[in-house]
Amino acid sequence: MTILAYGTPAGDQPLDRMEITRREVGAHDVRIEIIYCGICHSDLHQARGEWAGTLYPCVPGHEIVGRVAEVGAHVTSHKVGDLVGVGCIVDSCQHCAECADGLENFCDGMVGTYNGPSADAPGHTLGGYSQSVVVHDRYVLKITHPEDQLAAVAPLLCAGITTYSPLRHWGAGPGKKVGVVGIGGLGHMGLKLAHAMGAHVVAFTTSESKREDALKLGADEVVVSRNADEMAAHAKSFDFILNTVAAPHDLDAFLALLKRDGTMTLVGAPATPHPSPNAFNLIMKRRAIAGSMIGGIPETQEMLDFCAQHGITSDIEMIRPDEIEDAYARMLKGEVKYRFVMDIGQMAG
Amino acid sequence: MTILAYGTPAGDQPLDRMEITRREVGAHDVRIEIIYCGICHSDLHQARGEWAGTLYPCVPGHEIVGRVAEVGAHVTSHKVGDLVGVGCIVDSCQHCAECADGLENFCDGMVGTYNGPSADAPGHTLGGYSQSVVVHDRYVLKITHPEDQLAAVAPLLCAGITTYSPLRHWGAGPGKKVGVVGIGGLGHMGLKLAHAMGAHVVAFTTSESKREDALKLGADEVVVSRNADEMAAHAKSFDFILNTVAAPHDLDAFLALLKRDGTMTLVGAPATPHPSPNAFNLIMKRRAIAGSMIGGIPETQEMLDFCAQHGITSDIEMIRPDEIEDAYARMLKGEVKYRFVMDIGQMAG
Repeated sequence: MTILAYGTPAGDQPLDRMEITRREVGAHDVRIEIIYCGICHSDLHQARGEWAGTLYPCVPGHEIVGRVAEVGAHVTSHKVGDLVGVGCIVDSCQHCAECADGLENFCDGMVGTYNGPSADAPGHTLGGYSQSVVVHDRYVLKITHPEDQLAAVAPLLCAGITTYSPLRHWGAGPGKKVGVVGIGGLGHMGLKLAHAMGAHVVAFTTSESKREDALKLGADEVVVSRNADEMAAHAKSFDFILNTVAAPHDLDAFLALLKRDGTMTLVGAPATPHPSPNAFNLIMKRRAIAGSMIGGIPETQEMLDFCAQHGITSDIEMIRPDEIEDAYARMLKGEVKYRFVMDIGQMAG
Repeated sequence: MTILAYGTPAGDQPLDRMEITRREVGAHDVRIEIIYCGICHSDLHQARGEWAGTLYPCVPGHEIVGRVAEVGAHVTSHKVGDLVGVGCIVDSCQHCAECADGLENFCDGMVGTYNGPSADAPGHTLGGYSQSVVVHDRYVLKITHPEDQLAAVAPLLCAGITTYSPLRHWGAGPGKKVGVVGIGGLGHMGLKLAHAMGAHVVAFTTSESKREDALKLGADEVVVSRNADEMAAHAKSFDFILNTVAAPHDLDAFLALLKRDGTMTLVGAPATPHPSPNAFNLIMKRRAIAGSMIGGIPETQEMLDFCAQHGITSDIEMIRPDEIEDAYARMLKGEVKYRFVMDIGQMAG
């Protein structure tokens, strides 16, 4: 079927309305009428061709929420009318150790919601800046939040799980001191989630102006990371630091704040490398620098249920599809608190 | 008491014989007549002033084995005549969380066997290139190896524990694939220990000439790390990689060999930073780069007992004290298989 989408034919062209097709619903497929789609920084990187390998036409969007419109003959987990979500993953090999462990995000055959290999036209996946999507039921998540929160749920599908997964994996919870570096789309979710998990949460920001916001979002303390005295007061005290900043920056300043056996986990990848961290900072306290990438499907469902239970959504600003280029420009300037969400209902214009 | 030692009055002076004093034996002290002392690369760095803060005169040596000659009134764990060892640690605060956990190596008040703060003359600790040493009994290890292996036990006190501790901490054992990068003083111990722990062990070397040696030391496979095809054959397959190479090198080449959730641990600190690792290599498989530094006292005893039980010692070449400068020169050229040990009995000349 032919639907409307917002995408671009080339990296140097603005996003605009276009027609795309979606496959017929197969036995294991779910067709979702998309209601809202969150706007992730990755969308911009991919659309602009800033990462190697963008396939055009490119339709970004992997923070999808909507309503089930049709299900295949073998689908039992979802039914027409259900509120559902789709995140960054729409397929994987389904037989490797990672898939068996519910960590489809680490499957070598993981297919991204956009720019992934696909038998469907045009030969690669097209994302959620579109009126509908057809997805294998394994990768469709149930949404149990109240329906009036649906737009603010959308960013949980990427920003939420990308922060929830490492917080859980590295044991954020009562009795743990957890840092969240950067208060943007990812970081603001990290603060809410770490707080709800019961950790003592410290927000790190370069911007004094975000201090009040960070406290409202769930931080117990806020440190302006450019203030050496404020930083020094937290030396060797953190169990875990979630670093959401993709821009190259001094990792050593944060490594020094970890206690023995502490880990700092990066969820943003810089376009050019961070300054090389000092091996002594790792060796002296058996610290680690790790990375984490989104999360598996079962954990994404767990995250959505956790958020529904704790009343957690993203702080969002709604945009019309035809405002996407302005939104990208503002995102680059950090002028969003804290996630844009596209109102797909206005796509027909 | 006054004894003979080998040390240097300044970073630009060769090591030579000198007289030093040792304190009287206190209630908790053990006086050890040193029989052998291993030669660690750290000794050279410290003696030459290549690390900030060398205190002179400098007497290196922290791979000490010998016989108990005198014990204080409150010492019950050691008795005159026992074969004992002293490693890198001769004191710590004894009341912090690290000390309580038997991880004195991570205590902020840890006192190194040389160049550490001390009330004894000359105001800092003097190491094992000397005829005797007086040490608090907490930091004295029991040696249960046969006495004729004593010289080859000495390097276990630093090279042994520095590799044993991370191998244990990151779970080297049956069913695990473990890499050891670099086949020198540390790496050759890493191969022996990982093999004895039951892991599948892969040695990485830049030198084709070390292939046979690595197999004899315990490697199941050897990879010449300059051979891209050999490296690629091991992609995403390691649970743990112990990296003993202190020279700056490409960490990404090894990170790419870790499976999901794998860790590479650095035990050598380069004088100038490694090229900055690619964050994508961490993020894509939730990998980690960590560090580890020697080990705690209980774990050092555990390591010595494990080695005695498995018949593990270091491969050594014995030198006279007056050969130390030649030994340093050869160490810098990598011409030692795999550890020099100083015969302290020849110090009187």
